[in-house]
Amino acid sequence: MALTLGMILEARERLKGVAQRTGLVHFKALSDEDSQIYLKTEDLQSTGSFKLRGAYIKIASLTPEERACGVIASSAGNHAQGVALAARAFDTPATIVMPEGAPLSKVKATRELGANVVLHGNVYDDAYAEACRLQAETGATFIHPFDDPMVIAGQGTIGLEIMDDMPDVRTIVVPIGGGGLASGVSAAVKMLHPDVRVVGVQASGAAGMKASIEAGHVVELDSAKTIADGIAVKKPGELTFELCSRYVDEIVTVDDDEIAQAILLLMERGKMVAEGAGATAVAAIMSRKFDVSGKVVAVISGGNIDVTMISRIIEKGLLRAGRVSKLRILMQDRPGQLEQVSRLIAGAGANVMAVHHDRTDVDLDIRDAILEITMETQDREHAQRVIKALREAGFKVN
Amino acid sequence: MALTLGMILEARERLKGVAQRTGLVHFKALSDEDSQIYLKTEDLQSTGSFKLRGAYIKIASLTPEERACGVIASSAGNHAQGVALAARAFDTPATIVMPEGAPLSKVKATRELGANVVLHGNVYDDAYAEACRLQAETGATFIHPFDDPMVIAGQGTIGLEIMDDMPDVRTIVVPIGGGGLASGVSAAVKMLHPDVRVVGVQASGAAGMKASIEAGHVVELDSAKTIADGIAVKKPGELTFELCSRYVDEIVTVDDDEIAQAILLLMERGKMVAEGAGATAVAAIMSRKFDVSGKVVAVISGGNIDVTMISRIIEKGLLRAGRVSKLRILMQDRPGQLEQVSRLIAGAGANVMAVHHDRTDVDLDIRDAILEITMETQDREHAQRVIKALREAGFKVN
Repeated sequence: MALTLGMILEARERLKGVAQRTGLVHFKALSDEDSQIYLKTEDLQSTGSFKLRGAYIKIASLTPEERACGVIASSAGNHAQGVALAARAFDTPATIVMPEGAPLSKVKATRELGANVVLHGNVYDDAYAEACRLQAETGATFIHPFDDPMVIAGQGTIGLEIMDDMPDVRTIVVPIGGGGLASGVSAAVKMLHPDVRVVGVQASGAAGMKASIEAGHVVELDSAKTIADGIAVKKPGELTFELCSRYVDEIVTVDDDEIAQAILLLMERGKMVAEGAGATAVAAIMSRKFDVSGKVVAVISGGNIDVTMISRIIEKGLLRAGRVSKLRILMQDRPGQLEQVSRLIAGAGANVMAVHHDRTDVDLDIRDAILEITMETQDREHAQRVIKALREAGFKVN
Repeated sequence: MALTLGMILEARERLKGVAQRTGLVHFKALSDEDSQIYLKTEDLQSTGSFKLRGAYIKIASLTPEERACGVIASSAGNHAQGVALAARAFDTPATIVMPEGAPLSKVKATRELGANVVLHGNVYDDAYAEACRLQAETGATFIHPFDDPMVIAGQGTIGLEIMDDMPDVRTIVVPIGGGGLASGVSAAVKMLHPDVRVVGVQASGAAGMKASIEAGHVVELDSAKTIADGIAVKKPGELTFELCSRYVDEIVTVDDDEIAQAILLLMERGKMVAEGAGATAVAAIMSRKFDVSGKVVAVISGGNIDVTMISRIIEKGLLRAGRVSKLRILMQDRPGQLEQVSRLIAGAGANVMAVHHDRTDVDLDIRDAILEITMETQDREHAQRVIKALREAGFKVN
């Protein structure tokens, strides 16, 4: 079945009263005179991501008999919750197969939406295989996370909403994993407004769609490594490959550090919680991976990030930006040394956050000690000034 | 000068095009059939908190001559940025005195808004004294953070906006520190709609307004200890005391743990970043500190939370909710013990996050070791099941 504009328009009607009509938020922190950045806030969508849209449209397209047999999906993340909520809306039994290591919070959230959660295997591929087995056994309909025209039509409604809210948008930026979101949004936008640019963003460790388009056919990566688990996909779909080839103008990549910086910027300046995949479009804008002039809409595809991951990203992001610095200072193990170091650091305007003192390192001379200082600084240059002050006072720092 | 409804209505007109008209967001995570919770998102206000409103209205009320002499304020937080941005809008020189230990990010943000930042003293009181000295020296106008009718009129516009957006609201919940926000909102609401309830929320370690109202006069606390630094105020204002006494129906308190849980809930389920003070109204609703039936609006007063604080809150919040558990297991220091413990934990459905093995504890027998395990669990009950399984296998756990 080919994707038509009519299918996306129909999806929009069906989603009224089901999916949230998410808004566009002006993001001042990245805007300037030449470039106005807006965020399409699908992190505020029900279930915390756009996935509900496609899953609902797919289940809506089934016959009552098919729905009575139930639906099945495999997912460790947003698709699980999207399918569970959509199935509940149709009173359809849903089975979701998740790998055994899936975050407990996501397992719990999916169960709370009424789905039967089956934990199987160690990785997504194991869960997928089990879902196929259960599908054959039960006759339930398998809901593909991206390579399905009805699913894509559902995601495409995001493109229609953006065009409604901002008819003069110049560029729309969408994350790409399997390609369902990008296919839907780009198709909806280009079929109506071919002059609006659509830029896709992939994680550099999982850029299967980019590789496929460059190769001219679908290719499968050996691995998909990225902190953006929502787009950690090794192989794009056949249909999404075709649609992205036709409708996406350009695909850029962002690495884990860039994604982490974007998550941090969205939290600090936008007061928003975005997951890794959800922050990729902002990461691409921050790093000026493409021409960002004019009105640009970045699709924040979801906000389901583990809070423990947030902690790790904050620590890493602060270190990278030079806002937290860790110094190892070699000093003689005698009174007064710590006091002198503390005074030098305070004098340079930095705040000490943690101190660790070690005399047992195997490489140390018997009279020496290693002092590890964690301090808050304004930026990298500030950290360098502190290091310079310590070195000038005779301390060995690295 | 007494506060009038006219002053608040006038403030609303003046703030058009200056302050964001923030929206009400339905917060499903705390809503049920009897209780519909909405959030007034002042975390999305310019400068990340409501403070711009009052500061702008105060500066607008000055004569051109007064404005030419500049304004001055002391603050370690949101008031600093509010005054800086408001002053810039009037091309008025602004001096902000901050304590030397103020977070570097806030110092930087205030400077970027064009204010002259003076760092002085160790605590807020020192900065305040220095601001008074500079005020006398320069003739600049001191902008009080809360005890000023124009400042209160500005904050009161939040009450008008809530009533516009939700005329059938039953209860409005506002954080109280010095009382400026609560005075403005409660006055605006009660003068127009005396049947709408206004509930104030204070941090239990800084409940000066509650103590004052109970005493019948303004009292000063010995200390103000709370993670909600935006409402860590020892003594409410005279005017705010009078207005809160008249217009606030009830004041409840929340402790640091409750505030931390609310910050976590807003992040995980609302995808929102709230600071401690900003989360207190949600904390009071979560803990059912008052009758939450009907439509309830919680004012999220700001989102300027240090990201390092977010990390700490996440860790503490997960521990408290039993979603992360730390076990100390006494075991004999021989091969196979760690493997057995790991198997028991996995068998009980928990995920091990970190392991620390120690043979050097001073209380240990020479053949024993302490194993510290950090693990992810679903809730406290689940953690108890894991402990039970370990104990049944003969391990000493605490």
